[in-house]
Amino acid sequence: MAVPSPSGLLRGNALRLLRYLVLGAGLAAMMAITVPGLNPQSRSWLVVILWCCLGFFASELAIKSLTGAQAKAERNYFLTSSGIIDLLAVLPIPLALLIGVPADTAWLLVSLWLLKLAPAVPGLALLGRVIEQEARPLASVFVIFLIVLLLSAVALYALERTGQPERFGSLPQSLWWAVTTLTTTGYGDAVPQTFLGRMIAGTVMIFGLGVFGLWTGILATGFAAEHRRRDFIQNWDLVTSVPFLRNLDAPAVIELTHKLRRLDLAERNVVVRRGRPGDCMYFIASGEVEVKVEPQPVRLGAGSFFGEFALLDGGPRRATVVTTMPSTFLVLEVSDFRAFTAHHPELAKAVEREAARRRGTSEEEPLVGAQPASQIPEYRDE
Amino acid sequence: MAVPSPSGLLRGNALRLLRYLVLGAGLAAMMAITVPGLNPQSRSWLVVILWCCLGFFASELAIKSLTGAQAKAERNYFLTSSGIIDLLAVLPIPLALLIGVPADTAWLLVSLWLLKLAPAVPGLALLGRVIEQEARPLASVFVIFLIVLLLSAVALYALERTGQPERFGSLPQSLWWAVTTLTTTGYGDAVPQTFLGRMIAGTVMIFGLGVFGLWTGILATGFAAEHRRRDFIQNWDLVTSVPFLRNLDAPAVIELTHKLRRLDLAERNVVVRRGRPGDCMYFIASGEVEVKVEPQPVRLGAGSFFGEFALLDGGPRRATVVTTMPSTFLVLEVSDFRAFTAHHPELAKAVEREAARRRGTSEEEPLVGAQPASQIPEYRDE
Amino acid sequence: MAVPSPSGLLRGNALRLLRYLVLGAGLAAMMAITVPGLNPQSRSWLVVILWCCLGFFASELAIKSLTGAQAKAERNYFLTSSGIIDLLAVLPIPLALLIGVPADTAWLLVSLWLLKLAPAVPGLALLGRVIEQEARPLASVFVIFLIVLLLSAVALYALERTGQPERFGSLPQSLWWAVTTLTTTGYGDAVPQTFLGRMIAGTVMIFGLGVFGLWTGILATGFAAEHRRRDFIQNWDLVTSVPFLRNLDAPAVIELTHKLRRLDLAERNVVVRRGRPGDCMYFIASGEVEVKVEPQPVRLGAGSFFGEFALLDGGPRRATVVTTMPSTFLVLEVSDFRAFTAHHPELAKAVEREAARRRGTSEEEPLVGAQPASQIPEYRDE
Amino acid sequence: MAVPSPSGLLRGNALRLLRYLVLGAGLAAMMAITVPGLNPQSRSWLVVILWCCLGFFASELAIKSLTGAQAKAERNYFLTSSGIIDLLAVLPIPLALLIGVPADTAWLLVSLWLLKLAPAVPGLALLGRVIEQEARPLASVFVIFLIVLLLSAVALYALERTGQPERFGSLPQSLWWAVTTLTTTGYGDAVPQTFLGRMIAGTVMIFGLGVFGLWTGILATGFAAEHRRRDFIQNWDLVTSVPFLRNLDAPAVIELTHKLRRLDLAERNVVVRRGRPGDCMYFIASGEVEVKVEPQPVRLGAGSFFGEFALLDGGPRRATVVTTMPSTFLVLEVSDFRAFTAHHPELAKAVEREAARRRGTSEEEPLVGAQPASQIPEYRDE
Repeated sequence: MAVPSPSGLLRGNALRLLRYLVLGAGLAAMMAITVPGLNPQSRSWLVVILWCCLGFFASELAIKSLTGAQAKAERNYFLTSSGIIDLLAVLPIPLALLIGVPADTAWLLVSLWLLKLAPAVPGLALLGRVIEQEARPLASVFVIFLIVLLLSAVALYALERTGQPERFGSLPQSLWWAVTTLTTTGYGDAVPQTFLGRMIAGTVMIFGLGVFGLWTGILATGFAAEHRRRDFIQNWDLVTSVPFLRNLDAPAVIELTHKLRRLDLAERNVVVRRGRPGDCMYFIASGEVEVKVEPQPVRLGAGSFFGEFALLDGGPRRATVVTTMPSTFLVLEVSDFRAFTAHHPELAKAVEREAARRRGTSEEEPLVGAQPASQIPEYRDE
Repeated sequence: MAVPSPSGLLRGNALRLLRYLVLGAGLAAMMAITVPGLNPQSRSWLVVILWCCLGFFASELAIKSLTGAQAKAERNYFLTSSGIIDLLAVLPIPLALLIGVPADTAWLLVSLWLLKLAPAVPGLALLGRVIEQEARPLASVFVIFLIVLLLSAVALYALERTGQPERFGSLPQSLWWAVTTLTTTGYGDAVPQTFLGRMIAGTVMIFGLGVFGLWTGILATGFAAEHRRRDFIQNWDLVTSVPFLRNLDAPAVIELTHKLRRLDLAERNVVVRRGRPGDCMYFIASGEVEVKVEPQPVRLGAGSFFGEFALLDGGPRRATVVTTMPSTFLVLEVSDFRAFTAHHPELAKAVEREAARRRGTSEEEPLVGAQPASQIPEYRDE
Repeated sequence: MAVPSPSGLLRGNALRLLRYLVLGAGLAAMMAITVPGLNPQSRSWLVVILWCCLGFFASELAIKSLTGAQAKAERNYFLTSSGIIDLLAVLPIPLALLIGVPADTAWLLVSLWLLKLAPAVPGLALLGRVIEQEARPLASVFVIFLIVLLLSAVALYALERTGQPERFGSLPQSLWWAVTTLTTTGYGDAVPQTFLGRMIAGTVMIFGLGVFGLWTGILATGFAAEHRRRDFIQNWDLVTSVPFLRNLDAPAVIELTHKLRRLDLAERNVVVRRGRPGDCMYFIASGEVEVKVEPQPVRLGAGSFFGEFALLDGGPRRATVVTTMPSTFLVLEVSDFRAFTAHHPELAKAVEREAARRRGTSEEEPLVGAQPASQIPEYRDE
Repeated sequence: MAVPSPSGLLRGNALRLLRYLVLGAGLAAMMAITVPGLNPQSRSWLVVILWCCLGFFASELAIKSLTGAQAKAERNYFLTSSGIIDLLAVLPIPLALLIGVPADTAWLLVSLWLLKLAPAVPGLALLGRVIEQEARPLASVFVIFLIVLLLSAVALYALERTGQPERFGSLPQSLWWAVTTLTTTGYGDAVPQTFLGRMIAGTVMIFGLGVFGLWTGILATGFAAEHRRRDFIQNWDLVTSVPFLRNLDAPAVIELTHKLRRLDLAERNVVVRRGRPGDCMYFIASGEVEVKVEPQPVRLGAGSFFGEFALLDGGPRRATVVTTMPSTFLVLEVSDFRAFTAHHPELAKAVEREAARRRGTSEEEPLVGAQPASQIPEYRDE
C-alpha cells in the first residue's frame, strides 16, 4: 500500500529546474529594475523578461487547473494551498497595473513568487511542527522579551529625553532603540549618553544574550527532536525493504532504524573508492550498484549489502563501487555496527557468513536479495 | 473524571481577554501621549483612555479584595503576589500626580501594568526554576564576563585615552565601549583606533561569542530539562485517566508518559481529516469527538482512542474526526508507537484487537470507555 | 578519610565578605579617579581609599605567609597559585610608582585585584576542564574562523581600497573590518560600498552565524557534560550519608544519584510550606529540620526524609518544615520518584511504610536515622 | 603493539613547525606590505621575505613530487588534493607577475597559502561531514533566511525609498540593509526612519535571532554527534590494546569505550601528583610511566593501569606518576567507574584484587601487562 509517486508532465525534474530558473530570473529582473539611473533600453528588456516570467507562471496555472479538473480532484485546485500560491503569483501584478499602481511598485509583487519555494523546502513543514510543539515556552520567552523591551524603553525615555530629544523624544523612538539593543543588532543611531542610561543599556544587552540563549535552546531542542522522528519514519520504510534487516526481532529493528542513515545517490556515482579507509557498510534499499572486482564487475541489487570487509577487519576498501541507477542506501557506521552487534550478535554473524562466502571460503547460499544475487558469479577478493 | 475547570466571574475567559485589551489600550495610549507635536485634542482623548483603563483596574482590585474578604482567604489579598501587582497597577499613578509629578512622567508608570502579564506567562515560573537550578554555572559565567569586561576596559583606556579623550577618556566610558563590544552589540560610537587596541578589541569580540555560547548552553539545557519534567507530571495525570493505558505495568506507563504529547482543542475542531497522511494516534483524556463515518457518525468519549489504522497499515486517514466539546488528547506518534510496541507488544495487540473489532471482523467487547462505547453502532470502514 | 575543612581566621565567611567589599571599593575608586574634571579634594579621598585597600591586601598577604610558614606547609606559600595572585595584587602598584610611572597609570594595576575572584568562581575550574576536553574541536573552529577572517579581509582590501583608502587602505585595516563583521558586532566604522564587496560581506556575516553556532554548540555540550559529572560526584557522597538510600543495590544507587538534586539551606529557612502544592520529597544529608505539626513540632535529623505524602497522594503540603541549622538536602522530584520506583519498587514500599507509620496506622520501627527518630513522638496528620 | 608513527623527512614535526613559521612570516609580510607610507627599504626587505617563503614552498613541492614519483604512487601527486593545494601556493604568484598584474595585487595571492592549513585542522573533515549529514535542515533554514531577507528588503524599499533615496533607493541597497539586520550585525549605515519600516525592522531582527537559533542548534547537534562517533572509533582501538579491558564481554567493552577519554602526554610529564585529590584512574594504551614510590620508583608499561586507589577509597593521590616516554592513556572518571561497575562488578573486582596485591596483602599474579609487570618489585604503599 505504498503511496505511488506520480510523475506527470508538471512534476518532472526538468520542469522544476525550469521553474526555479524563471523564478530566479524574475527576482533578478525585479531587483535590477529598481536601480536608479538605468538606461531606458535595459529597462525595457527587463520588463520584457518580467512579463515572460509572469506568462510562464500563468500558463503553468492554467495547465494545472485543467489537469486537476480532469483528474476529478477531491477538492477544487484553487482552494488547495498550492493553488492559492499559484494564484497569488499570477493575479496581483496585472490587477495592480490595471488599477493604476505605478509599474515600479506593481512589479515589487514579484516577491510573492517566493512563496512557490515554500513547498520545496523540506524543513518548512518541520519548522512549523517545531513551533507548534514548542509554542508555550516560545511564547513565554517572547512575552519576557516584550516586557524587558517596554520597561527598558520607558526607562531610557525618562532618562534621555531631555538630553537627546531627537533620539529618545518619544516612547516609540525609545522602543526602536530598545529593539535594536535587545537583539544585539546595535545600529548606533540612538545611543544613551547619561550614566544611568548606559548602566540600564548594558543590563539590557546582557539580558538580550539570555533571551537569545533561551530562544536558541528551545528551537534547537525542538528541531532536533522533530528531525530525529522524521528520519526514523523514513528509515523504517527503507529497513523493511531489506529482507536481511527485516528478519531481525522487533527491538533490534527499532534500534537499527535509529542508527542507520539514509543516502540517496544518482546514477554513476562512486559510493566507495578502492584504497580509501572504510568506516561504514551499505545496505541497498533500492537501485543497483556495480562492484569493480576482477576478473569482471559484479552487480548488487536492492536488498543486498556491501562494504562489510572494512567493518570486519578495519582495512581499506578492497573495491570501488559505483551506482548504475539512482539508488537509496542505508549506511551503518563502524561505531554503530560495533555497538549494535555487541547486543545483537546475530547480525554480525550473518554479515560474517556472507563476507566469508564472498571471500570464497564458504559455499553457502548468499544472503543478499534473491534476484540480484543470481548475478553475482565471482565476487571474491584476492 | 475530568478535572473541573472553575470559571468564576473574575476568572472567565472573556474577562481575561477584556483585561488584556485594556492593558494593550493603556500601553498604546501611553506611547502615543509621549510623541511630541501631538495636537491638544488627541492628547485629551488619550488621557481619557488612560483614566478609563486605570478605572478598570481599580474596580477589578476593589472587587477582588471584597470577594477575597468574603471567601475567608487564608492570607490577606494585599499580601499575595497577585494583590501586590494589582496595587502597583492602581496606586502609583494617582500618587505621583498628587505629589506634583508632571503628568507626562506620571503616566509612564502605566508600564507597571505589564506586571499583570507575569502570572499569565506559563514559562515564567519555569524560567525562575531554571535560573534557580543553574544558578552556580550562570554565576560563574557572569563573573568571567565581568572580569573580561573590566580588564578589556582598563586595557583600552590605557591605549586609547590619549588619542580619543572624548571616547575613552575615563574608565566608565571605556566600560561602556567594553559592554557594547562584549555583547557583540557594536553601536560604533566608540571604536579603538590604535593597532594594539584593535587587537584587544578583536579578542574581546571573539571572547564575547564564547561567553554567549556558554550562557546559551546552560540556559537551554536547563530549560529543556525543566520543561520535560513538567510535561511528564501533566501527562501522568492524563495517562491515568485513560483506563486502556493505566492498565499497563508500571515501567511501560512511565515510558509511555514520556512519549505521549498533550493536545488541547476547543469545540468543533478537526482533529484528523479524511485522506490526509496519518502519522499518529489519539487517546481521549477528556472531552468527546465525532467520527464522520457512514452511514452515521460515531461519538467517542474520554478513555477511548482513534487514528490507530494509520499506525497499523500506514495508509491515509479513513475518516474525519471533529471535537464536539473542548477536549484533551494524548498523541502517540508512529515512531514512538513502533519503538514502544517493540518492547511492549501487549499495547500493539490491544490496539489491533480494537481495530479489528472496528473493521467488523471481530465481535469482542470494545476496549474504549464504557459509557461512550455503547453509542458506537457501526464504526466500520468500507 | 574525608578531607577536613579548615576554618581559621583568614577563611571565615565574614572575612571573605570584607575582602570582596575592599575589592569592590578599590575598583570603584580606580574607575572614579579616571574621570576627567574631578575636583582635587575628591581625588585625594579616592587615593586614600586606594591606599587603604592596598594596605588591607598587603596585611592579608603578610598574615597568610607567616601562618603558612608556621604550619610547615609542603610548598612555599609564594609558589602556590593563591600566593602568586596575592603578590600580584600588592607589589606591582608600589613598584610602578617607585620607577616613576604616573599615578593615574599605576593605579590601573588595581584591576589585577580581580584575579582574587578567580578561585571563588566555582565554574572557572569547570570551564578550564571543558576547554581542555574540547580543545581539538574548538581549535578547529578557531582555525576556520581565522581562514575566513583572512580571506575575506584580502578580498575586501582588493575590492574597496581604491574607493575607500582611509577605511580599507591596508590589510590590517581590512582585517579590523573583517573581525567586527564576522563576530556580527558591526561597529559600522568601515562599510563596503562596492556591489561585490557587499556580496562578500553578506556571505561573511552568514558564515559568522555558523561559526558562532559551532562554538556555542561545542562549549555548551562540554559544559553540560562536565557539570553533570561534578554533580554526580557531589551527590554520591551525600547519598552514601543517608542510610535509607545507601542500602539500595548498586545500580539503583547510581540511578538515584543521577536523579537527586542537592539543596543547601541556611538556618531558619522554610523548606516546604503548608498548603502549597508538593512536587518533591527531601532526604536530609546533614543538618536538622523542624516539622510544624500539632500538638507539638517534630525534629528530623540527618538520614531522615520528609515531604513524601505529596508524592504518594498528590495533595498539598500538610505541614510547614523549617531548618533549625544549616542543612543539606537531596531533593527527589515527583516525576523522578515515579520513574525510579517503577523500576525499583522497594524504595516506594519503604517510603509508603514510613508514611503509614507517620499517619499512625502502623507501629513499625521508623526508617529514619536512629538518633533523631527517637525524638519523633507524635508526627501524625489529622 | 602501539601503532608505529612514520616519521620521514617531509613529515617530521620540526619540518611541520618550519612550514607553519614560513606560512606565518609570509602572511605577516603580505599584510605589512599593504600599509601605505611604508619606506622603500622596509618594503624591499618584505618583498625579499615573500620571495624566500615562496622559494621554500616551491622546493617543498619539487621534493614531494620527485619523492612521489619514485614511490610509485597510485595516483599522480598533482592530482591529489594535497598536490593541488601545493601547486596553488606556488604557481599563481609568478604567473600573475608575468602577465603584468601589479606586484601589490599579485602578492595578495599569498592568502592561498592558508589552504595548506586545511589538512592540519582535525575538525575540518568533521565539519564537512556534519554539513553533509545535516544538509537538508541547514538548506531549509537557509531558504527561510533568503525568503525573509528578500521580503523584508522589498518591504523596506517600498517604505523608505522616498524618504532616504540614497540608502533605500534600489532593491540591492535595501537587500544590503536586510542582510546586515537579519544577521544582527547592524552597521547602522542604513536605518529605517518611517514608523512602519521600523516595525518591520524590529520583526526582522527578532526573526534573525530565531534563524540564528535554528542554525546553531542544527550545527551543534550534528557536531556533537560526529565528535562522539569519532571518539568512539579512536577509543575502540586503544581499548583493544589493553588486555585487562579487552577481556570484558562485548556489551561491557562498548559501554566502557563510550566512557573512556583519551589523553596523550609527552615525555617527562606529570600524570598525577602526590597529595592532590584523585578523581580518575588511568589505563596505559601505549608508552611507559614511572611511579615515584619508596624505596625505589616502579615502572609501568602499556596494558597496565594506575590511580585506582583514589577511586576505591576516595583519598588523595598516594604517589606522583611521571611519563618516561610519549604515552597514551585511557582515563576513567570516578563517576563513570562507579556507574560502570554497578552493572559490571567484574571490573571492580579485578581492580580491587590488583590494588590489594599492590598494597602487599595478596601474592596473586599481577593483572598488568606481562613485560612491564616483571619490573614491579615493591609497589606497596606504607
